[in-house]
Amino acid sequence: MRVRLDHDRPRRIGQPEAILCEGKALADLDAILGALQGRPTLLTRLAPERHAALAAPPKDYDPASRTAIVNGCLPARTGRVRVVTAGTGDLPVALEALRTLRFGGLSPDLIADIGVAGLWRLEEQIESIRDSDAVVVVAGMDGALVSVIGGLVGVPVIGVPTSVGYGAAEGGRTALNAMLASCAQGVLVCNIDNGFGAASAVLRILEARAR
Amino acid sequence: MRVRLDHDRPRRIGQPEAILCEGKALADLDAILGALQGRPTLLTRLAPERHAALAAPPKDYDPASRTAIVNGCLPARTGRVRVVTAGTGDLPVALEALRTLRFGGLSPDLIADIGVAGLWRLEEQIESIRDSDAVVVVAGMDGALVSVIGGLVGVPVIGVPTSVGYGAAEGGRTALNAMLASCAQGVLVCNIDNGFGAASAVLRILEARAR
Amino acid sequence: MRVRLDHDRPRRIGQPEAILCEGKALADLDAILGALQGRPTLLTRLAPERHAALAAPPKDYDPASRTAIVNGCLPARTGRVRVVTAGTGDLPVALEALRTLRFGGLSPDLIADIGVAGLWRLEEQIESIRDSDAVVVVAGMDGALVSVIGGLVGVPVIGVPTSVGYGAAEGGRTALNAMLASCAQGVLVCNIDNGFGAASAVLRILEARAR
Amino acid sequence: MRVRLDHDRPRRIGQPEAILCEGKALADLDAILGALQGRPTLLTRLAPERHAALAAPPKDYDPASRTAIVNGCLPARTGRVRVVTAGTGDLPVALEALRTLRFGGLSPDLIADIGVAGLWRLEEQIESIRDSDAVVVVAGMDGALVSVIGGLVGVPVIGVPTSVGYGAAEGGRTALNAMLASCAQGVLVCNIDNGFGAASAVLRILEARAR
Amino acid sequence: MRVRLDHDRPRRIGQPEAILCEGKALADLDAILGALQGRPTLLTRLAPERHAALAAPPKDYDPASRTAIVNGCLPARTGRVRVVTAGTGDLPVALEALRTLRFGGLSPDLIADIGVAGLWRLEEQIESIRDSDAVVVVAGMDGALVSVIGGLVGVPVIGVPTSVGYGAAEGGRTALNAMLASCAQGVLVCNIDNGFGAASAVLRILEARAR
Amino acid sequence: MRVRLDHDRPRRIGQPEAILCEGKALADLDAILGALQGRPTLLTRLAPERHAALAAPPKDYDPASRTAIVNGCLPARTGRVRVVTAGTGDLPVALEALRTLRFGGLSPDLIADIGVAGLWRLEEQIESIRDSDAVVVVAGMDGALVSVIGGLVGVPVIGVPTSVGYGAAEGGRTALNAMLASCAQGVLVCNIDNGFGAASAVLRILEARAR
Amino acid sequence: MRVRLDHDRPRRIGQPEAILCEGKALADLDAILGALQGRPTLLTRLAPERHAALAAPPKDYDPASRTAIVNGCLPARTGRVRVVTAGTGDLPVALEALRTLRFGGLSPDLIADIGVAGLWRLEEQIESIRDSDAVVVVAGMDGALVSVIGGLVGVPVIGVPTSVGYGAAEGGRTALNAMLASCAQGVLVCNIDNGFGAASAVLRILEARAR
Amino acid sequence: MRVRLDHDRPRRIGQPEAILCEGKALADLDAILGALQGRPTLLTRLAPERHAALAAPPKDYDPASRTAIVNGCLPARTGRVRVVTAGTGDLPVALEALRTLRFGGLSPDLIADIGVAGLWRLEEQIESIRDSDAVVVVAGMDGALVSVIGGLVGVPVIGVPTSVGYGAAEGGRTALNAMLASCAQGVLVCNIDNGFGAASAVLRILEARAR
Ligand SMILES: Nc1ncnc2c1ncn2[C@@H]1O[C@H](COP(=O)(O)O)[C@@H](O)[C@H]1O
Ligand SMILES: Nc1ncnc2c1ncn2[C@@H]1O[C@H](COP(=O)(O)O)[C@@H](O)[C@H]1O
Ligand SMILES: Nc1ncnc2c1ncn2[C@@H]1O[C@H](COP(=O)(O)O)[C@@H](O)[C@H]1O
Ligand SMILES: Nc1ncnc2c1ncn2[C@@H]1O[C@H](COP(=O)(O)O)[C@@H](O)[C@H]1O
Ligand SMILES: [Mg+2]
Ligand SMILES: [Mg+2]
Ligand SMILES: [Mg+2]
Ligand SMILES: [Mg+2]
Ligand SMILES: [Mg+2]
Ligand SMILES: [Mg+2]
Ligand SMILES: [Mg+2]
Ligand SMILES: [Mg+2]
Repeated sequence: MRVRLDHDRPRRIGQPEAILCEGKALADLDAILGALQGRPTLLTRLAPERHAALAAPPKDYDPASRTAIVNGCLPARTGRVRVVTAGTGDLPVALEALRTLRFGGLSPDLIADIGVAGLWRLEEQIESIRDSDAVVVVAGMDGALVSVIGGLVGVPVIGVPTSVGYGAAEGGRTALNAMLASCAQGVLVCNIDNGFGAASAVLRILEARAR
Repeated sequence: MRVRLDHDRPRRIGQPEAILCEGKALADLDAILGALQGRPTLLTRLAPERHAALAAPPKDYDPASRTAIVNGCLPARTGRVRVVTAGTGDLPVALEALRTLRFGGLSPDLIADIGVAGLWRLEEQIESIRDSDAVVVVAGMDGALVSVIGGLVGVPVIGVPTSVGYGAAEGGRTALNAMLASCAQGVLVCNIDNGFGAASAVLRILEARAR
Repeated sequence: MRVRLDHDRPRRIGQPEAILCEGKALADLDAILGALQGRPTLLTRLAPERHAALAAPPKDYDPASRTAIVNGCLPARTGRVRVVTAGTGDLPVALEALRTLRFGGLSPDLIADIGVAGLWRLEEQIESIRDSDAVVVVAGMDGALVSVIGGLVGVPVIGVPTSVGYGAAEGGRTALNAMLASCAQGVLVCNIDNGFGAASAVLRILEARAR
Repeated sequence: MRVRLDHDRPRRIGQPEAILCEGKALADLDAILGALQGRPTLLTRLAPERHAALAAPPKDYDPASRTAIVNGCLPARTGRVRVVTAGTGDLPVALEALRTLRFGGLSPDLIADIGVAGLWRLEEQIESIRDSDAVVVVAGMDGALVSVIGGLVGVPVIGVPTSVGYGAAEGGRTALNAMLASCAQGVLVCNIDNGFGAASAVLRILEARAR
Repeated sequence: MRVRLDHDRPRRIGQPEAILCEGKALADLDAILGALQGRPTLLTRLAPERHAALAAPPKDYDPASRTAIVNGCLPARTGRVRVVTAGTGDLPVALEALRTLRFGGLSPDLIADIGVAGLWRLEEQIESIRDSDAVVVVAGMDGALVSVIGGLVGVPVIGVPTSVGYGAAEGGRTALNAMLASCAQGVLVCNIDNGFGAASAVLRILEARAR
Repeated sequence: MRVRLDHDRPRRIGQPEAILCEGKALADLDAILGALQGRPTLLTRLAPERHAALAAPPKDYDPASRTAIVNGCLPARTGRVRVVTAGTGDLPVALEALRTLRFGGLSPDLIADIGVAGLWRLEEQIESIRDSDAVVVVAGMDGALVSVIGGLVGVPVIGVPTSVGYGAAEGGRTALNAMLASCAQGVLVCNIDNGFGAASAVLRILEARAR
Repeated sequence: MRVRLDHDRPRRIGQPEAILCEGKALADLDAILGALQGRPTLLTRLAPERHAALAAPPKDYDPASRTAIVNGCLPARTGRVRVVTAGTGDLPVALEALRTLRFGGLSPDLIADIGVAGLWRLEEQIESIRDSDAVVVVAGMDGALVSVIGGLVGVPVIGVPTSVGYGAAEGGRTALNAMLASCAQGVLVCNIDNGFGAASAVLRILEARAR
Repeated sequence: MRVRLDHDRPRRIGQPEAILCEGKALADLDAILGALQGRPTLLTRLAPERHAALAAPPKDYDPASRTAIVNGCLPARTGRVRVVTAGTGDLPVALEALRTLRFGGLSPDLIADIGVAGLWRLEEQIESIRDSDAVVVVAGMDGALVSVIGGLVGVPVIGVPTSVGYGAAEGGRTALNAMLASCAQGVLVCNIDNGFGAASAVLRILEARAR
């Protein structure tokens, strides 16, 4: 047995195991899909050409976010969540977060392209951000948007650094470190490009609240 | 004017500006304390000898967490929060988180010394951790405790990597990266040794929920 | 003479020189194969397309582990060895370890996909792991499985960090450092993705014991 | 001859050689001071205890910026320069920039403690910043202030990252990289904690303009 | 709305938002081009094959600098600007700077291939460099040209490290750090390969001067 | 309860929990010592001045290895173990390994100062090294001794990189990486300066063999 | 003029400028070749497909070392030089050194594949190495061969680290650092994969001696 | 036996083993000194307070270079060697090189403080540098002096990066990398601050030449 799914995860943490498709052999992905037994499951980081090469390519596939949803979404739940981006290059990561949130039963909003180099864009959207249960902030390069939003609103702020940028952007490490060392207090951070993880954290926050 | 406090922060984010004392001249700290005008304020990373050297050393000073509370705590609020440590060396950071939570009006619990090298200790405490509104996990070296707890409970998990360890522990960078790259989904991370930040994030989560 | 094999190695260390195929010109690999003179030899990191392009492609080639065995395996020896993986992405490295062990005359077992995000899977397998002469633990991302197993069993634990993961996983450096800085005592570590090296170390342990 | 001053520098670049005192033996500093021959000279990074230990401690010494001015300042020149800080910990570096500018014949202004965690402070000062010939922005931790100011004003913006912060602040490397990877276009950067260098660059800008 | 342009930027900083094309989806680039409404705009880091794949490929495209100019250049302005390179490999970055300067209304000069390994080449050109309003120095490997020019002329010196070189050149990080730690005082630095940023900084310098 | 010892560890892994004294408050160390209840325990990285400051300083304290043994050693066991050093600076780490082995019931030998810069020293000792059940190789700077010994003997080789050296030695990271990337097959590695860990691994190897 | 050759270099340093072809546009390489005017010139890091795409591909091209020689070699000179490799993967770099030495008028010897994992190979060759005017040691992974040779012979030892290896080999940085931190005294080091540089240094040594 | 000297080294490499005193216990240094048996020996990196604490402090001790010479120098030999520094802070490293050369029987010259920020100083000295058998170039910060000298003279150039500088100087790593990635061909490099190693390499060059 080369594949051992954690089918018990929903009972323990309220969310099913997601399948990180990058770095797994196609045959192993096929085996995993064959073992799902009707359980709702999210597939992440699944490139279009690998999706097409699966034995039974999932129908609900979205190439922009590189995600597939198998056996439908989780039951709907309430919660106002905003996913915010600094620039257009951050969109794929934001879309991964949005798909994960929808899989989790939410109806999140995207607020795109409000990076701090043109602060009026953020100011136009700030009330909607403030009026959230949680905000996911997706930003590369300097990652400065997390600090500015963290200083303007009191809701949970989850920063997702992206690998957007070159040179001193260091493949997302600069945005990551800047978010961790933010001058705004109480902002939290995910791995680089991990829109899935940020959304999964939002689900934890809303789940805990719902009890 | 060399000191400009952000007295408006409670209105915007529900928490007052905390004063990071490390790296500030004593005269500047005295000026800040003189400008507080009765507002409840938390001082962090204030070493005992520098506390003693202030013009008017705050009375409510705790050397183990290196924090001082001036003008009392914020109004009490409800919420079950656990602060968990992997080892004894992680205690100072956990104590900073606990003080910040108490300053914020909460009554958090400490669950100390349950690192994964002796898993039965974690198993003994897991129900109490599961039954929380948020759990702060403080761990150095391999940071593995975050992944194990993240796989066992569905509440918000906030990892605080510590600079405990030597060599490949890289001053906390290894625990930080391990938490960011955790195989458990939806765990969130703070800066190294930043117990204050983790607690401040918990306050955001509980604040948003309270509305 | 551009190729100089260490044909004396079995006498000195009990194992023949293995051929790392990555980074060698095809002509040089052909020359090496031509100089083996019937000695049992393991080829590692040999990509399928390069295997096919050799002058005389070895018949016993396994693309999943990227290994070839030429002139048969070493004499059978006794020893209970388990190769354990955290996730499906770690399989290729585990398969390299398994092939090397089989080449060395052993019959090792694979225990796949028991990462700490779903701890019950490890608990189901722990007796089999405890009842080993050595266990090879293959894990990427946070590398936490090494610490947990190292705390549960007293047999030699050899961690192999893998390059599975992205961002803060740092191409395997995070798992490597986490294993080196493990809170479990006496675990040992190999280079990233080096299943061959871990298996070779197991052979040293069993060889020394056999004397 | 162990000390060879570049007495020709004012002719070539319009500014005399400054003496970086850190890392030079006291005897060598004494020899340098003895060789100045009445030329106006700035000493930087001169710690108070080393200043006091010199054979002839310069009178115009400022411990907060760790600078000394020997043989007076350069002739007065015109130019509106602002030196801005994000937080109180950035003050020593800002003071080094201010002293260097005054040595260079200017009358710069300090705008302190306007970090982005409390954006209203920056908004209050933005007109004065916009109305400058150049602005030096001193910030540690996330370095975000450079990006926000760079997006609001069109004058030359010179970022000076500071070593303020801990953990992921990486001794100023995070602020440095964030400024280099800024989403605001055309901002320029100096070495970490190099207030002297930023001021010296301002002098180049004003010198070129004056011709 | 997935694209939100900062059309207000010329009013604030005197330069329009430039479009970084690398890392943006083609559909998003098409949307941006469609939203420009006749405003003069510079596109950077646009690879030839992606330019060709746009819905309406801009006509004024230069593959060597990977830039496109849409809706013409900004009004002409005065200023003597030199862009200097150390070696032939630095040319693409220098050409990006030159195109940005031309877009900004200037007529800059290129002085190519004057690296310090053959110092007579620099000496031949030094008067022309000294007689500038600003000089952009593009260099990879050791980045030494910035220090030598910074010691010879008093005009603003803007270093652009390039990713030219291998091994210890570290993808441009060595040149970047060498420029930041330069023994010449008051030189300023941009991100690796960021010819656009250096030119944009020159425009700030000339803009401030023009007022 | 701030201290929770893993008193069950000998049952699980055959060795008691060791106490890493560095980074723990003295009061916490006193509490740990008070809770040992007669169990044999090893204390590591205990500096002389901290040992002296304990409430009840353990009598069996060795300052050179910075270890203390409380309540005696474990029962004697058989096994020929050599601890080898490259240079004199590696001695403290080797002594930590030797003390841990003695605590574990063994009688190991030290072979000091046989670094590869003078290869005849190693050649003089090689038979004794070959005739071991395991060899611990302690080396800083280039760590080359591990590769040379790993190529000469077939017994388990455990490399311990040390922080000996300066500059490019990178505090032991160079020796660590060199051991991990060794051209000798099947050598295993511990954390930098971790003589304790290497010895603990030897105990695992001998324990498994004894069953 | 975009290409400015340093035709004066032979007069100053006794060797002509070599052309690093990697990272230069084909058109620029064509221009350089057109400007050589019969001067003997070495081209390095010229990939086969780029060589073939030149306007006038040099005839004396060697794909294994990726070098071309144009207009013949320099006059013959005397000197016994050995180029030594640790493993087969290091050959391309050694061949670059050998070609550069031949271009410089020497007749160097290759001693291949004598890495320290099989020390008898080095011992067989040591007299020939000792009897040299200079030895170039090309090694990747742990770079240990430099230390061992440096301890055995008194002639100039020039280490060339290679990018051979994976994981902790860090693209050659580990071998580089190990050579720099070598326990053998007086060994010198070049950039990673820089066979050309090592050979050029040998030419300096022989040139100085010849005067 | 805890100390094993390599008394055979002069026979093999023409130079005795030097004693790196940093990181060795005083008792071990005393044992080494007691075992020298009249052989001329150089002690390096011996801090003044540790020198004074030795059982029999060597008389020929120089605190500026932190070296001691025991039992006299090696026989005089011929050779014109220059040791060059960029700035005053590089002096201690240059002095270590000079002492090692004198110990080796040479009479080297110091040319101090000719860094590239004031190029005329180098130009004044260039004939003396060109007329050498080898030149040691000691420089911190940007390390640019090595590239400039390497382009001007054809003799062997040995760069010694120093830890002089702050921030992006990275403790000498920037100068080290800049020297390795130098645009001047055939320059060689030592470890950071390793004046001893550079001098020892010069002795190899002169020794080989003398045969
Ligand atoms: N995009 C993602 N980023 C990070 N972790 C993920 C992602 N997708 C799935 N995971 C988690 O990664 C773990 C990988 O385990 P495996 O699939 O067994 O290799 C699973 O437990 C998932 O919850
Ligand atoms: N221990 C701490 N760690 C991280 N940030 C802190 C800490 N204490 C206070 N802060 C925040 O650090 C920021 C620093 O601003 P300043 O004090 O102006 O330099 C403030 O906005 C605080 O909210
Ligand atoms: N200043 C120095 N820098 C680098 N290596 C040194 C220095 N001084 C002595 N050495 C060498 O360092 C090695 C250290 O070996 P040991 O003294 O046994 O630790 C000896 O072989 C010396 O040749
Ligand atoms: N605080 C400073 N930061 C960076 N460079 C400086 C500083 N102060 C002086 N310098 C420059 O550092 C160079 C160092 O040269 P030296 O004093 O000869 O070591 C001089 O040319 C100065 O212009
Ligand atoms: Mg945008
Ligand atoms: Mg504990
Ligand atoms: Mg799995
Ligand atoms: Mg403040
Ligand atoms: Mg050129
Ligand atoms: Mg020694
Ligand atoms: Mg080989
Ligand atoms: Mg100087």
